[in-house]
Amino acid sequence: MHTLRIGIVGYGNLARGVELAAARQGDIELVAIFSRREGVQSAGGTPVYTMDKLDAFVGQIDVLMLCGGSANDLMTQARDIGAKFHIVDSFDTHAKVEEHFTELDAVSKAAGKVSLISVGWDPGLFSLQRLYGEAVLPHGKNYTFWGRGISQGHSNAIRRIPGVADAKQYTVPKEACLERCRRGEQADISAQESHLRECYVVLADGANAATVEQAIKTMPDYFDGYETVVHFVSQEELDRDHSAMPHGGFVLRVGETKPAETEVIEYSLKLDSNPSFTASVLVAYARALMRLAAHGATGCFTVFDIPPAYLSPKSPRELRKLL
Amino acid sequence: MHTLRIGIVGYGNLARGVELAAARQGDIELVAIFSRREGVQSAGGTPVYTMDKLDAFVGQIDVLMLCGGSANDLMTQARDIGAKFHIVDSFDTHAKVEEHFTELDAVSKAAGKVSLISVGWDPGLFSLQRLYGEAVLPHGKNYTFWGRGISQGHSNAIRRIPGVADAKQYTVPKEACLERCRRGEQADISAQESHLRECYVVLADGANAATVEQAIKTMPDYFDGYETVVHFVSQEELDRDHSAMPHGGFVLRVGETKPAETEVIEYSLKLDSNPSFTASVLVAYARALMRLAAHGATGCFTVFDIPPAYLSPKSPRELRKLL
Repeated sequence: MHTLRIGIVGYGNLARGVELAAARQGDIELVAIFSRREGVQSAGGTPVYTMDKLDAFVGQIDVLMLCGGSANDLMTQARDIGAKFHIVDSFDTHAKVEEHFTELDAVSKAAGKVSLISVGWDPGLFSLQRLYGEAVLPHGKNYTFWGRGISQGHSNAIRRIPGVADAKQYTVPKEACLERCRRGEQADISAQESHLRECYVVLADGANAATVEQAIKTMPDYFDGYETVVHFVSQEELDRDHSAMPHGGFVLRVGETKPAETEVIEYSLKLDSNPSFTASVLVAYARALMRLAAHGATGCFTVFDIPPAYLSPKSPRELRKLL
Repeated sequence: MHTLRIGIVGYGNLARGVELAAARQGDIELVAIFSRREGVQSAGGTPVYTMDKLDAFVGQIDVLMLCGGSANDLMTQARDIGAKFHIVDSFDTHAKVEEHFTELDAVSKAAGKVSLISVGWDPGLFSLQRLYGEAVLPHGKNYTFWGRGISQGHSNAIRRIPGVADAKQYTVPKEACLERCRRGEQADISAQESHLRECYVVLADGANAATVEQAIKTMPDYFDGYETVVHFVSQEELDRDHSAMPHGGFVLRVGETKPAETEVIEYSLKLDSNPSFTASVLVAYARALMRLAAHGATGCFTVFDIPPAYLSPKSPRELRKLL
């Protein structure tokens, strides 16, 4: 197949992952990176341009990977760029997915382009597993466990507490709850019951450990109601042992095919690097999106709309050997 | 959406599963079962007809589920019936998939119909996981473990040994090999190394246990090279403890995103009933096939060609909530 020419908008952890992932696919060429900042250097030697140069690449880049930051930024950016390019994003603000979809669908259709939103592992591969599980076992329940992995949102929440110099928070699934699901129990299990929150905290000079610990454990929405463990560590220890970005999780579908006959589907990820893996998913879906465009599609899509074969560089005949 | 009207051809364990699975889907009506045998009664009260009545149901059945026996039967049947109906089968003779696909593709196209082959869990859902895993992590390895579950082929092979009255064989994945994959080792692990074969054997009157055990353990292709455990049991014990049809297995993709950065994807099934679950997959794909037909497709397809959304009774908007 043809080489797929991609570009990246925004240059953070996810973008660095896309740069690596593109190099590992034989049929994908990363043409350029676009950043709002001046003077950005890429880790892999890809040319970096400021955003105002983007229009000059119409016709030279097939798909742009939006790797920008906040939900609001991403929505605005997608509307602008989606009018000129096919785009892929990893939009994950649940409450705004429908709004983002509707807006971008109109933009992409008007431009004769395709866009693919909410790509990654959750949302993304986990969402696919929920769909397949529900379709195959309609009488059943979905369970999702996240971790063990760093939650950026929870880490930031701890850092905002007075007396905290730095912090990392791991979300950890509770093995006992996982085992209950695996045994086929269709219990009602809340996220609070099924996850442990493990915090590594560096105290500011003169801060009181007990006060900080209490402030963490009672923080509404983030920690209240969860089993929370707080470890106080030095900045050196935090930097040395907690700088990686591992993550993962589990999606289970537990369903009955007849009374007292239970089937359990389990999907899990164990990731050394959350951004590298998310980027790998984005890149495979860029290929799929180009195939969709080649079939004449326009508008906005999600992973649910993409025939699995479109993700693979293999021919249909080669793929049938995987059967 | 409309009610999907399906029929079943052949009435064995898989067909009984389809009968149950159809009843659990709100939008699927099982119209009739067709059997080569006279006088078959269905477990769920579905009307049963002999095969010569099939033509009378053109226009009354949307999709026929082929639940027949051997590979050769299924190929012949598919060619005949695929000329008149949309069909789904669970064809699993690896060496003949391409031949079956090519023949049926021509038949379905000529008839303006769609057919979907090799649906189930392996081939089927496991094949999908292999595709997604390879596409996302191109630098890596696939591993498949089967079991713990009854292998019909191995059970039958034992039964053919002189001195054996009855037998069941469980294929059991070795936990230590699974753990090596989960840790991210990209080892070369053969099926022989990674599976244990556990046999429950009823001796015929006067047979010699040691001779039978030796004959099992040295049987080429089936047991030679595998760690094999033989338990001699009474017919009563076999009937009481080994009549169920549990199965399952694991598909893992272990891949690098950069040197010393490993990502592990694991998919597993733990099934109380192999035929019930396989049937549940077939029924969900019957819905998907009808959607494909509604979009004007003709010819033969596999699970790789089906957009995941087609499997679900939910609307695209409802599905986006799974993101």
